Amino acid sequence: MNTALRVVKIGGNVIDNEVHLTTILDACAAFNAPFVLVHGGGNIATEVAQQLGAPQTMIDGRRITDASTLRVLTMVFAGLVNKNIVTALQARGINAIGLTGADGNLTRAVRRGVNTTDFGFVGDITWVNTPMFTSLLQSGMCPVCAPLSHDGNGSLLNTNADDVARVLAVALTSVAVANRCDAVELTYIFDHAGVLRNVNDPSSAIPTLTRDEAKALVADGTITKGMLPKLENAFVAAENGVRTVRITRYDNLDGGTLIYA
Amino acid sequence: MNTALRVVKIGGNVIDNEVHLTTILDACAAFNAPFVLVHGGGNIATEVAQQLGAPQTMIDGRRITDASTLRVLTMVFAGLVNKNIVTALQARGINAIGLTGADGNLTRAVRRGVNTTDFGFVGDITWVNTPMFTSLLQSGMCPVCAPLSHDGNGSLLNTNADDVARVLAVALTSVAVANRCDAVELTYIFDHAGVLRNVNDPSSAIPTLTRDEAKALVADGTITKGMLPKLENAFVAAENGVRTVRITRYDNLDGGTLIYA
Repeated sequence: MNTALRVVKIGGNVIDNEVHLTTILDACAAFNAPFVLVHGGGNIATEVAQQLGAPQTMIDGRRITDASTLRVLTMVFAGLVNKNIVTALQARGINAIGLTGADGNLTRAVRRGVNTTDFGFVGDITWVNTPMFTSLLQSGMCPVCAPLSHDGNGSLLNTNADDVARVLAVALTSVAVANRCDAVELTYIFDHAGVLRNVNDPSSAIPTLTRDEAKALVADGTITKGMLPKLENAFVAAENGVRTVRITRYDNLDGGTLIYA
Repeated sequence: MNTALRVVKIGGNVIDNEVHLTTILDACAAFNAPFVLVHGGGNIATEVAQQLGAPQTMIDGRRITDASTLRVLTMVFAGLVNKNIVTALQARGINAIGLTGADGNLTRAVRRGVNTTDFGFVGDITWVNTPMFTSLLQSGMCPVCAPLSHDGNGSLLNTNADDVARVLAVALTSVAVANRCDAVELTYIFDHAGVLRNVNDPSSAIPTLTRDEAKALVADGTITKGMLPKLENAFVAAENGVRTVRITRYDNLDGGTLIYA
């Protein structure tokens, strides 16, 4: 075996652009190996929320999720975005199955504690139902995961999609072999061709990055602070058994910046 | 064995009423046998569509489904309604998994031909992935099915929920035994305690009904024409191997009117 069980995370920059989405779904369908897709959809959610008269508040890039916002996220993440991806993968011969954390009890989360800000129905994953993921993968299915978990008490919780991808990738490391793969590979798709040395030069992607190197690049201003949460997820994944972690653009799934523990 | 694999269909009259929905989910959770839930959600969809400025047209009780309406139905059926039910069942210890026909390639449909009316993205199921349903049931999961199928070419299709329930019940008759059940039971939940002799008298439910008896009751005006599509689904199910077919109210899952072939 020399095959990776891939976990690919796509965000709004891909989902909002039909050409980019087509490109990435074509590339995933050509993997010839099992994969898990994790998606966001925040821009569409914001748009629908505004149309429905539920204005959105973001603090530090995180969405305040009151009951009416959770309703919108459930419609957009679990409904519109998820099913459009599933249907498009089915048309490519991939047996996709769309899931929130509530479906099959796949991811349990705990509502985030209130420190300075009450984010509302926002949760962090505390448990992954790895056997259920294995069961779906072994049935030949491709899980397509919306960024919603559940608390086991009847509530969905808005869960950061980068976090979902990292948590799933780490959990699946223990079952890669059972899924005909020798390791897990985590790919974060974002706006650029990788972590860039010069944000105006797409050819300046840094090939490899360790935590110490990243610290130095943040200190000298090369990497902006906005990249830090994504990089942190990537480093934690690499430190917890995910063999390959990369940050790249929609049209270069085997390139970009490789993240090392 | 003397256990039925139950297929229960709930419509807007239950979904729109939190007390009714709680009652029926409690009852289903107490089955102590595998079951499949099929839901509608048309009233909420109409409401959201109006809020989003996509006014709805119904002809003979069927929704004209243009692209913007399909978008709303995907949000409401596959997202809001489906995930609220799944999350509520999970809180009752039932390992529910929410599905459209695209998920796991569960139901394929063909877009309805245009005779006098073009209904748009509306389809009739032509194939059920019975092995996939069996695989989910045998993994201990409870499929919760939204009234959307897919055409295999990248499009979801709005599919009548009563039809979905009938098609699934018939398909599952061949695998009931493999799912530790000796037969399939189909239950349509609707507004009344059964098919009523007198619509103003809830105690007038007709205990059993054959196709010939129904014809006579339509002829003499006892049964209104609006009941005919539901009754037709029920008769077809009974004629195609579904052992027990009943039409009843949310609070009486083992009562109502039994439909015989």
